[in-house]
Amino acid sequence: MDMKKVNSLDFTEFVSVFRNVVERCPLVAAAVWSHRPFSGLEDLENHFFAFIDALPKSGQEGILRCHPDLAGRDVLMGRLSEESRREQSHAGLTSLKTHDRLRLLHLNQEYRKRFGFPFVVAALLSDRATVFQELARRLHCQPESELRTALDEVKKIIHLRLIDLLDSHYFGVEPPQGRGLERRQDASERGDSAPQASSDLEDDPHTHTKEVEN
Amino acid sequence: MDMKKVNSLDFTEFVSVFRNVVERCPLVAAAVWSHRPFSGLEDLENHFFAFIDALPKSGQEGILRCHPDLAGRDVLMGRLSEESRREQSHAGLTSLKTHDRLRLLHLNQEYRKRFGFPFVVAALLSDRATVFQELARRLHCQPESELRTALDEVKKIIHLRLIDLLDSHYFGVEPPQGRGLERRQDASERGDSAPQASSDLEDDPHTHTKEVEN
Repeated sequence: MDMKKVNSLDFTEFVSVFRNVVERCPLVAAAVWSHRPFSGLEDLENHFFAFIDALPKSGQEGILRCHPDLAGRDVLMGRLSEESRREQSHAGLTSLKTHDRLRLLHLNQEYRKRFGFPFVVAALLSDRATVFQELARRLHCQPESELRTALDEVKKIIHLRLIDLLDSHYFGVEPPQGRGLERRQDASERGDSAPQASSDLEDDPHTHTKEVEN
Repeated sequence: MDMKKVNSLDFTEFVSVFRNVVERCPLVAAAVWSHRPFSGLEDLENHFFAFIDALPKSGQEGILRCHPDLAGRDVLMGRLSEESRREQSHAGLTSLKTHDRLRLLHLNQEYRKRFGFPFVVAALLSDRATVFQELARRLHCQPESELRTALDEVKKIIHLRLIDLLDSHYFGVEPPQGRGLERRQDASERGDSAPQASSDLEDDPHTHTKEVEN
């Protein structure tokens, strides 16, 4: 889908396509539509970022609370959004051995208790080892700085999900914080499960549906 | 569920219970949890209202865009949230004859075109005739005042959904704008489908689930 097509969507279509760009927060896409037309990917994603930046602290914490635990209950119950399932799968978090899963469960619990929101990381830019390292490291950060770190991860996820929904000619754009897309591109080159919108999203209200033709 | 129980919920439980108090916007409940403990229904609902009031105009429009059209496509496709289905059913909007449904479809289209969000009304305080009258009337209002009117309706819906989730001893509280709950109480007395949390919500991520015992 190119930007001309994006700018032609009515709000129902737009929310349908971009509803899960911010995990389980279709409100953000529904708000961003007010700012059309968009000049390109950067303009579009900046409106997603601006919505989050303008929220009070409780709202920013709320954005994080809408994310599932990594390798948590939603994974076991098959309740992940399609996007989250692909991202966690990419980082090897949907197929952990019991020992690792229990360790992650414990670390997640400690993190949630300390900060009041779940640990969020751009899993598509991570692998199993770095997820464990990051979680163990961030668990000891100060709450204020950890909120900022977690929101930066949300923005990386937004960037990657938007790229995935738009045409491949946007792939050269740098993600927030100047971190490269090396792992993402490696995965694509390997023919791994680079997320693509697919028809199996239709019955999951947490995700966008394919009512709008690309 | 009493307020002591509400205040004891962790954020996953809280979002699970209150996720659809604002239609398809679990983010609001996820943000409101930051403000616990709550002294009572009024305190709790004031935090839901404050979140909406603090949003920029685009975010407030976004709240409205997360609502389904009355008697619209989501009704036909069986994709309403459980709460919305009950409310629309109460106002007789899920069983319209073809002539009335097409008239409502046309009016909804005109409204969406004029304001950029769907027509929202507290259907539990309405009946079929008043929905048609209100839609025809509000279609000619100025955009700024119509946004305020629509958000007032959202607040009435929030109030009624919160009451429904909490104990019946809160029933004496006046809803926003001082409008009474006469129709709601009449419906209960008639033994009509007064919304209650029920186990059939479990598989609908648009609605709260019953993971937390009342």
